[in-house]
Amino acid sequence: MAKKQLRVGMIGYGFMGRAHSNAYKQVGQFFPSQHEVVLKAACARNADQIKAFADQWGYESTETDWKKLIERKDIDVVDICTPNNLHKEIALAAAAAGKMILCEKPLAMNSAEGKIMVDAVEKAKVPNMVWYNYRRIPAVTLAKKLIEEGRLGKIFHYRAKFLQDWTIKSDLPQGGQGLWRLDVEAAGSGVSGDLLAHCIDTALWLNGRLDTVNCMTETFVKERMHNLTGKVEKVGIDDACIFMGKFENGSLANFESTRYARGHKALYTFEINGENMSIGWDLHDLHRLQIFDYKDEGKIRGWKSIHVTDNSPDHPYMANWWVPGLAIGYDSSFTHQVADFIQGLETGKPQGPTFRDALETQQVLDAILDSAKSQKWVTVAK
Amino acid sequence: MAKKQLRVGMIGYGFMGRAHSNAYKQVGQFFPSQHEVVLKAACARNADQIKAFADQWGYESTETDWKKLIERKDIDVVDICTPNNLHKEIALAAAAAGKMILCEKPLAMNSAEGKIMVDAVEKAKVPNMVWYNYRRIPAVTLAKKLIEEGRLGKIFHYRAKFLQDWTIKSDLPQGGQGLWRLDVEAAGSGVSGDLLAHCIDTALWLNGRLDTVNCMTETFVKERMHNLTGKVEKVGIDDACIFMGKFENGSLANFESTRYARGHKALYTFEINGENMSIGWDLHDLHRLQIFDYKDEGKIRGWKSIHVTDNSPDHPYMANWWVPGLAIGYDSSFTHQVADFIQGLETGKPQGPTFRDALETQQVLDAILDSAKSQKWVTVAK
Amino acid sequence: MAKKQLRVGMIGYGFMGRAHSNAYKQVGQFFPSQHEVVLKAACARNADQIKAFADQWGYESTETDWKKLIERKDIDVVDICTPNNLHKEIALAAAAAGKMILCEKPLAMNSAEGKIMVDAVEKAKVPNMVWYNYRRIPAVTLAKKLIEEGRLGKIFHYRAKFLQDWTIKSDLPQGGQGLWRLDVEAAGSGVSGDLLAHCIDTALWLNGRLDTVNCMTETFVKERMHNLTGKVEKVGIDDACIFMGKFENGSLANFESTRYARGHKALYTFEINGENMSIGWDLHDLHRLQIFDYKDEGKIRGWKSIHVTDNSPDHPYMANWWVPGLAIGYDSSFTHQVADFIQGLETGKPQGPTFRDALETQQVLDAILDSAKSQKWVTVAK
Amino acid sequence: MAKKQLRVGMIGYGFMGRAHSNAYKQVGQFFPSQHEVVLKAACARNADQIKAFADQWGYESTETDWKKLIERKDIDVVDICTPNNLHKEIALAAAAAGKMILCEKPLAMNSAEGKIMVDAVEKAKVPNMVWYNYRRIPAVTLAKKLIEEGRLGKIFHYRAKFLQDWTIKSDLPQGGQGLWRLDVEAAGSGVSGDLLAHCIDTALWLNGRLDTVNCMTETFVKERMHNLTGKVEKVGIDDACIFMGKFENGSLANFESTRYARGHKALYTFEINGENMSIGWDLHDLHRLQIFDYKDEGKIRGWKSIHVTDNSPDHPYMANWWVPGLAIGYDSSFTHQVADFIQGLETGKPQGPTFRDALETQQVLDAILDSAKSQKWVTVAK
Repeated sequence: MAKKQLRVGMIGYGFMGRAHSNAYKQVGQFFPSQHEVVLKAACARNADQIKAFADQWGYESTETDWKKLIERKDIDVVDICTPNNLHKEIALAAAAAGKMILCEKPLAMNSAEGKIMVDAVEKAKVPNMVWYNYRRIPAVTLAKKLIEEGRLGKIFHYRAKFLQDWTIKSDLPQGGQGLWRLDVEAAGSGVSGDLLAHCIDTALWLNGRLDTVNCMTETFVKERMHNLTGKVEKVGIDDACIFMGKFENGSLANFESTRYARGHKALYTFEINGENMSIGWDLHDLHRLQIFDYKDEGKIRGWKSIHVTDNSPDHPYMANWWVPGLAIGYDSSFTHQVADFIQGLETGKPQGPTFRDALETQQVLDAILDSAKSQKWVTVAK
Repeated sequence: MAKKQLRVGMIGYGFMGRAHSNAYKQVGQFFPSQHEVVLKAACARNADQIKAFADQWGYESTETDWKKLIERKDIDVVDICTPNNLHKEIALAAAAAGKMILCEKPLAMNSAEGKIMVDAVEKAKVPNMVWYNYRRIPAVTLAKKLIEEGRLGKIFHYRAKFLQDWTIKSDLPQGGQGLWRLDVEAAGSGVSGDLLAHCIDTALWLNGRLDTVNCMTETFVKERMHNLTGKVEKVGIDDACIFMGKFENGSLANFESTRYARGHKALYTFEINGENMSIGWDLHDLHRLQIFDYKDEGKIRGWKSIHVTDNSPDHPYMANWWVPGLAIGYDSSFTHQVADFIQGLETGKPQGPTFRDALETQQVLDAILDSAKSQKWVTVAK
Repeated sequence: MAKKQLRVGMIGYGFMGRAHSNAYKQVGQFFPSQHEVVLKAACARNADQIKAFADQWGYESTETDWKKLIERKDIDVVDICTPNNLHKEIALAAAAAGKMILCEKPLAMNSAEGKIMVDAVEKAKVPNMVWYNYRRIPAVTLAKKLIEEGRLGKIFHYRAKFLQDWTIKSDLPQGGQGLWRLDVEAAGSGVSGDLLAHCIDTALWLNGRLDTVNCMTETFVKERMHNLTGKVEKVGIDDACIFMGKFENGSLANFESTRYARGHKALYTFEINGENMSIGWDLHDLHRLQIFDYKDEGKIRGWKSIHVTDNSPDHPYMANWWVPGLAIGYDSSFTHQVADFIQGLETGKPQGPTFRDALETQQVLDAILDSAKSQKWVTVAK
Repeated sequence: MAKKQLRVGMIGYGFMGRAHSNAYKQVGQFFPSQHEVVLKAACARNADQIKAFADQWGYESTETDWKKLIERKDIDVVDICTPNNLHKEIALAAAAAGKMILCEKPLAMNSAEGKIMVDAVEKAKVPNMVWYNYRRIPAVTLAKKLIEEGRLGKIFHYRAKFLQDWTIKSDLPQGGQGLWRLDVEAAGSGVSGDLLAHCIDTALWLNGRLDTVNCMTETFVKERMHNLTGKVEKVGIDDACIFMGKFENGSLANFESTRYARGHKALYTFEINGENMSIGWDLHDLHRLQIFDYKDEGKIRGWKSIHVTDNSPDHPYMANWWVPGLAIGYDSSFTHQVADFIQGLETGKPQGPTFRDALETQQVLDAILDSAKSQKWVTVAK
């Protein structure tokens, strides 16, 4: 049976461009389906760089103008891997052209933009998804299953952190390639949009909507040299962001993100405390899920570390990889996302996070940044 | 050389009464000094129970009226181990009688009470101390040393949590012996005064004063049967408490405490992120200190787990115990506190936390509870 | 009700003399019984040193000749804390005098000596016990319970290690106070008798007898200055000892001990792999027991870390200490041993390890040292 | 610049066939070189299955007779992923045909076979390598660097284990596809050749040659149904294997492997204790290296957990992957091996383990199995 082609047009070629490309190349071997992903075209303004990228990753062609890419008839899916400030314009054009869209997170610069994007893809009825990849780390997906099975009971607490330490040096410049995440014009915000967005997406998925939030942000280094202007400029992003809040289910939220936590490279952790079970996860050891099951007999109750690597249906996605005990890496979460996107196409049941799902995260981001500014409790828009 | 007697009069005989008594009995063997602690009298309203306690622990006599105890000429030190609502009255009387005072934490029901107590002991010039024992876990004391040596550099973050799970059952009653911590009349507050007070004391000691705070509290179980009245009554304490804030040194605070975190028995943890070093500690493995030293060579940088058990001056207090690798328990922190109190007497340099130190913690507690009520940022009184 | 006195005569005042004394002083408070332990006399050759020790620990009197101590009518229990080469002579005299005996481990220099000692105490019908204290760490006792309840099923593997690093420096002398463990004349052997003896005692208790063994030993530093002679002398002890073997129940043994494992202070670990459950323990975190329960549901199977600190009958000994989450230290294992010894007296059911139990360990020690010499498999004598 | 093709002919399509194929497909993107790997042909007896495999993984053609594959002019590299009993014959033919050879481990059924294979590839002067992939887990490679830099000093101990639990069920059959590792005819041995071989390869690489060994093996389940004959037959493999020994550098070896350690999926661990530094690693958390550096200042000495994920030259191979904190998986070790094989071709400096290196492992395997049979110490052939 001939497979149906899914021709990808990739815009951007940075860290995420590479991660997605690897996923497109792996998915057919590890998660075979009726579709065949074809790396049709890669696009970026710099012709030489995008040519080199395309050669290395096997894209058949290149473009230097994303509008051209979107016009091409031989592209089925547009993958948006640009800085955040370009997401909206590209997505609207792609939706208008009837392309499926896979967009990097956060969806937009703010929820106003995000709303427009949701309307566009829904009106155009194009399949769409946002790359909140951590949902598809097997241990995280297993957490979701345990929750759906009702094992946790009433939830009291949800705690999440995303700690990094790479911007402590005050002579690190802001802006431009590789550093656009430090430039508020390109990124929209700092750790809130870059890191907390992941924590929020996972939380909404696992624990439902947030009702109210109260937030503080801090910019430790107030000025940095800007790579694009060559001048020392005011830093507009948040270096650290803490918020507390309440979920609709009555549980308390404690979220924190920073790039000034010396010793933590990318320590995304969450812990959920339910009446009957608690669950914890940690990106630094992403193949493990921690659980405490109150139903265990008293004398042998304790926190259990599950090595989520069994090649059986017990452990999500892992039946398609190796044998028990052999961990997969961070990159696999993207492969799983492509596999699920394709499954969504084939079953007609779109897999999240869709643009609409991602808009909820954007609304929380808006609320926390509003709260940080007003120094008041803020209700999350819905 | 004959030792000088330090005759203790203990008021209360619960969990803390036992912990302090054990310390009084151990201190002479492990931290010999010019003083000899004598367990002179134990006091509680119930004559039979205090007699049994005194017999078991070797107190020479008993009293059933704490005022009588304070009047006795053969008592040098009054140890206040009663519920919080009695601290003030006893302390004032003891100070008036010229007794040294060791008072359980938190110092008082609120900072107004605490202020009066501080004034009283300072006016009476009696040595005084509050049992914030965690300062004297060797790993925590080592953390203090590393900070004093300036190893951390500029501090960006201070995070502390104290998580328990013992009140999740809604049919647990409130009030009376063993459960007075759930009764707002006796305890003053819930997890804030009971648990967060420890976190705050350690934080002020390690990281300096808090400037501003923003807090939320929650009472998950709204009504419980009251043991003293036999009726179902409204629960007045906070079951969970989260606050964020800013220290005077510019670092951000993220504190949380709850008795609804399934799977955590007494998980007091803190982490400090400095420019050059980060430090973490965890009461569940109290003999270990975690550090990340950015000065380490890049290729071998990582979090280090220090087993703080060397019988050498390197590891505080440990030269007086066993041999490397053999951990001491929770109870030793009290022994260390008595040893240091005596050292304070002998050197004339009082060791903290004094009543005055503990008042600062009380001021933070007032501020967070105010904030929880007003839903606003609150500046900590000084 | 007046308590019955148990008057202790302690011989020796080193590390173990202190650990036992602390236990004698604590037992009445934490494990009250019908007996009252009285620290009657402490004995050592150096009059000044033993006087200082007695003063510090509250012994009523001192002796400088252990024979005198044993003759005293006011001594009920003789506690032997001397170097190993004196155990036999003292024990025989104490038994002949009808004293109860608590003897430090290993029981003897070899099993020939041990056999004589067993015969002596059994003929004299005096209560006797050997200080293999690790049986009474709550986590280890819990392991015993799980095994007795049949939870492990058929046992396949038993692995134990005791790793230290304190003798790596080649200029460390041998012999004399504090270092007699490095002197083969005083100690009988090196790590085998000092460290592996503990591992073997626990193993025989948890897993039954060893059938056959095959061993290698190594002395890394061949000569050391001898503190007693002032000369550089050949080192007679084993610095490292590895043996494999087979238990009577068919499981395989893998044991190792060394004082040359850089980074390990006193890392006594064991792991037992049964058909249905595996169990692991580690002295460096002595309050935790690790278990893997194959009966757990597949998707949430994993290694569980039990914090053995619940003040309930679930966790052995812990109901007598503090509250959940608060760990006790290494020293408590001795307190438990005294409590159990007294319970043995009161119930008429002697608690192990008796001299007879400890003889089995001695027989394994003989067998492994024979094997190391002969380079052959050796059957353990019974 | 046009790349040079490296046309692979793969024999076998099981677990390893998939792991190698993934590596061939990834290497060009993550470790670009002057070579381009081309998946030319896949070969197995079953035409349908190999066709399906080739389609899924993108092999251009298939063969059902490995001799035909080797005859093909368009194949540069033969990859041998068959059961062990076919390695020799195929390797000899491939060498005779002048093909480069990548052979699965262990090299051969025994060292006699291995010797013939080494002679063949060396005579034919064909590049050759054996898939001992764990050398190329970044944390393990970092361990090698630390050793080469002389940081450990004199080595005292080398300990390695490979523990699994998948064959405990006695009704698991032996033999045939997926289970040939349990059939002594196909595998040659049990855990020794399958698992210990990995431990030995790493050890010889990190710590030099083994001199003498003393081994015991055990077959817990004596009979299993054979999938190829349909009859219950005697089990010929070792289920567990423990050996001790001495390395040429004077350090002691303690090695163990089993498939009966309940709770361990693929727990390959090693620890090296040097005078100045100790190092440990664990396949279950493969992205971490544990080190203890005695040169650290006393008060902050401890075991450090290095998260070997920095995209910098500090952490081997990682500069080519993602950003700090994001772990790669087990599969990457194969990608690294292909990258290094190609680098060996391009630089003219062959990267190990070559067939000759792998022969040393085979000689240790022979020695331990001899020792298990003779119950004596055996000197490793050289």
